[in-house]
Amino acid sequence: MRILLTGGTIDKVYLEADGKLWFKDSIIEEMLKQGRCTAETTVEILMQKDSLDFTDADRQVVSDACRRAQEEQLIITHGTDTMTRTAADLASLELAKTIVLTGSMIPHRVGSSDALFNLGCAVAAVQLLPYGVYIAINGEVFEWDKVEKNRKLGRFERTGA
Amino acid sequence: MRILLTGGTIDKVYLEADGKLWFKDSIIEEMLKQGRCTAETTVEILMQKDSLDFTDADRQVVSDACRRAQEEQLIITHGTDTMTRTAADLASLELAKTIVLTGSMIPHRVGSSDALFNLGCAVAAVQLLPYGVYIAINGEVFEWDKVEKNRKLGRFERTGA
Amino acid sequence: MRILLTGGTIDKVYLEADGKLWFKDSIIEEMLKQGRCTAETTVEILMQKDSLDFTDADRQVVSDACRRAQEEQLIITHGTDTMTRTAADLASLELAKTIVLTGSMIPHRVGSSDALFNLGCAVAAVQLLPYGVYIAINGEVFEWDKVEKNRKLGRFERTGA
Amino acid sequence: MRILLTGGTIDKVYLEADGKLWFKDSIIEEMLKQGRCTAETTVEILMQKDSLDFTDADRQVVSDACRRAQEEQLIITHGTDTMTRTAADLASLELAKTIVLTGSMIPHRVGSSDALFNLGCAVAAVQLLPYGVYIAINGEVFEWDKVEKNRKLGRFERTGA
Repeated sequence: MRILLTGGTIDKVYLEADGKLWFKDSIIEEMLKQGRCTAETTVEILMQKDSLDFTDADRQVVSDACRRAQEEQLIITHGTDTMTRTAADLASLELAKTIVLTGSMIPHRVGSSDALFNLGCAVAAVQLLPYGVYIAINGEVFEWDKVEKNRKLGRFERTGA
Repeated sequence: MRILLTGGTIDKVYLEADGKLWFKDSIIEEMLKQGRCTAETTVEILMQKDSLDFTDADRQVVSDACRRAQEEQLIITHGTDTMTRTAADLASLELAKTIVLTGSMIPHRVGSSDALFNLGCAVAAVQLLPYGVYIAINGEVFEWDKVEKNRKLGRFERTGA
Repeated sequence: MRILLTGGTIDKVYLEADGKLWFKDSIIEEMLKQGRCTAETTVEILMQKDSLDFTDADRQVVSDACRRAQEEQLIITHGTDTMTRTAADLASLELAKTIVLTGSMIPHRVGSSDALFNLGCAVAAVQLLPYGVYIAINGEVFEWDKVEKNRKLGRFERTGA
Repeated sequence: MRILLTGGTIDKVYLEADGKLWFKDSIIEEMLKQGRCTAETTVEILMQKDSLDFTDADRQVVSDACRRAQEEQLIITHGTDTMTRTAADLASLELAKTIVLTGSMIPHRVGSSDALFNLGCAVAAVQLLPYGVYIAINGEVFEWDKVEKNRKLGRFERTGA
């Protein structure tokens, strides 16, 4: 599988000089190692952005990377705030690939983070699902067009009939 | 889904009075909370044992619990050393259920544990797989009869053709 | 001893709604509990600020709290950037008290933090030092007028003869 | 200062092959690095034992190391169960040195450990105390003959009048 990184809370680390959480070296590979993942993975950094700062050009970069990838199993790590929008863009491509977006509400580097759990969900899901675009988070696997983020509760929820 | 706990490294905590890692209150629910799991889960403690100490009677308890459970999606947390043996027992029941066994090489309470990643894998896998018995660990989902633990390398590996 | 809190990196927690590290409930008491501190401590929150945002009025609040405190042993948790300036203000009061300032380079909540080590240094130092104003950090105890922060290296250093 | 390691809970790591906490590479230097300790320290491993397994010969090794050390500031990391007994042996040497024993109730590698706090206490204390033998733990600095471990409560307490 290929893991395309776009940034998001999951990948933020503490930058001492600035006194804040932001992007530096990605820690997704460190997380895979902690999870002792033996599934074959290729990690590719597309960008390192807060998803609130995503532009149409950024989404185009993600779309191009998905189209270009030779693997049929793709995980995209992504900020949660605009994850569903990127998912919709990818769905419109109708690729013969299984694409799973994931991220986290708390950075992996911060105590009690949900990041490792979510990455585990995504890694399993991408190997088991048919072609399509999905969001794996909160211990659930959502189809791209049946989920939205509930910002108030800080979680994703299945959207109605 | 129902999560049946049998003990194993994943659930060991540090007992100060004894100066060692052993079982006390299960921390699986704490892990689900950390993972912000919104999938409906019922946690049931069957036993709290190191899987090296499992007896046939223990495996019978697990089998009975799987047969009895009303849910079709079952996760079993289990020590890694005899996980495949319990899986084989469960497979022989030929239940119309999806049963996923998981565990970890390092207790959740100890630094750099693989526990949360594995639980994430299992939670996603049990919702996506057809009826059968599986082991979710190392970022992979194995059919029960196509996997064995490599003790030397401390990981599970797919068994040959 | 009395522990006067002013904020600083040591006490920042992750605020999900904002996606950043900032102040909410102080975690100093949680740290003392983790350290199993049995020394009698009274914790008082004076303010929760990044020390770069400290005003003269803020420093006056700290000075007043030190003067008013009935304990002779005072610890002040403080951001590192202006810690020496507040220390100088306190030294000018010439109180018959032992005042130890401490803080950290990484928030306690973030992995590999120096916070607990520094708080341990401060708790020991305040009980052993004569009246005066000190900074306890980096495993050293500095007199207030013989130390400066080296921002480039992210540590405190003894100033020359 | 010189830090003499004898083992104890503070230094135990998780050994996967055995499925338990025991000694391998010492992590005291890793802890000093995490605490960003700039005080000059020389770390010397004397032994790696649970202090319940200490023999008179072991205590002799510690005594010899303290006598031999060229530094006047010595920290000894030690299991808590027989820490006071080793301290008494060292006191009988009447060395012109400041000797501070410390340890922890929970291994540094296990969540919510008191280890880093205690090491911080010891590092500050050894630089500030006059010659003598002390135990730094629980946020307190005890003279060697005025403290005992309360096993039931898992902490050290000052002994009577």
